[in-house]
Amino acid sequence: MQISRLTQQIQFIIEIDKLKQILRQTLLTDGSRQENSAEHSWHLAIMAVVLAEYAPEGVDLSRAIKMLLIHDLVEIDAGDTFCYDVQGNESNQEREAQAALRLFGLLPADQASELRSVWEEFETLQTPTAKFAAALDRIQPLLHNQQTQGGTWRIHSVTRDQVMKRVAPVETGTPELWSFVQQLIEDCIAAGYLKDAPASTPAK
Amino acid sequence: MQISRLTQQIQFIIEIDKLKQILRQTLLTDGSRQENSAEHSWHLAIMAVVLAEYAPEGVDLSRAIKMLLIHDLVEIDAGDTFCYDVQGNESNQEREAQAALRLFGLLPADQASELRSVWEEFETLQTPTAKFAAALDRIQPLLHNQQTQGGTWRIHSVTRDQVMKRVAPVETGTPELWSFVQQLIEDCIAAGYLKDAPASTPAK
Ligand SMILES: [Ca+2]
Repeated sequence: MQISRLTQQIQFIIEIDKLKQILRQTLLTDGSRQENSAEHSWHLAIMAVVLAEYAPEGVDLSRAIKMLLIHDLVEIDAGDTFCYDVQGNESNQEREAQAALRLFGLLPADQASELRSVWEEFETLQTPTAKFAAALDRIQPLLHNQQTQGGTWRIHSVTRDQVMKRVAPVETGTPELWSFVQQLIEDCIAAGYLKDAPASTPAK
Repeated sequence: MQISRLTQQIQFIIEIDKLKQILRQTLLTDGSRQENSAEHSWHLAIMAVVLAEYAPEGVDLSRAIKMLLIHDLVEIDAGDTFCYDVQGNESNQEREAQAALRLFGLLPADQASELRSVWEEFETLQTPTAKFAAALDRIQPLLHNQQTQGGTWRIHSVTRDQVMKRVAPVETGTPELWSFVQQLIEDCIAAGYLKDAPASTPAK
């Protein structure tokens, strides 16, 4: 065992503690506070375990779990950009790429390149594994918004069209859960948690 | 796909959100607040990924990750008991067993019994996988206490003997990291973060 290799690994482990301080727009299911990106990633990883049976052919479940555990690490440098903030998300790509270089670069070279490739696979959204992971990342906030009677949707006047666009990856990422997601959205509209407005209505 | 099966799984996913509100004694590395058990579990799962090369023969890494993700779920009902609270830990076992029955019992029977067996394996600490997972669970708070200049150790007047007893599973769980852990403790004592006191000194 080379000590310097372990030292790099420990530095990375200490550094990523900062993800616990990155707040998302999503509220906890009891509405008491905003969720942070570390506990969000934990929630998604367990969802992958529990919902594994709905993963389509070609999904590598272990890799999906690893992907979900690390997918938000770049927010340590780049911050969390609200998914319905179009401008913010455009300028964010370059910052996130830089963040990935710095953060994964704390690790020994072989691990840095492996984890960066897992992260890039998630971002590129081309493989069945990345699509499955992304689908779970879309479903979890839906559940939170339902549990909090509209939560972030109400705060930001989000509409059905925006949500439908946002959850689109579920249809290919985990087709067996698509009808569940569609029904959930209908229920939220019926309950008044989400506005059934046309796409032209600007979100604040 | 049976809808009732999915409904059970979704109920479980919503219920475990409560782990984000269970506070541990450990502080975040910048000392700003206590860590919660969900983000702690996330941190441990990434540690398993990054430190996988130090897992001894016989460790099933995917199972270790799953174990670390769910190992603290019982705290939703039983609460977090401070590891140096001897009395609390004795009375806690029965409460945790009940919690495992209720929480995993929210899932379809096959998944309930699978995840309960993963949790029991962690608790029983007999397999290489459980020992490796437990070793990581012991190392992480050490790093946090070092980063916070003694953190919880100072608050609770914890001594070297107590810490040595607590980290003992590292020696068999991941022998390659044992000298690192021993050195870390020596460094913390030298820096005044941890008291070098005999076992007879009662911790508060
Ligand atoms: Ca623990």
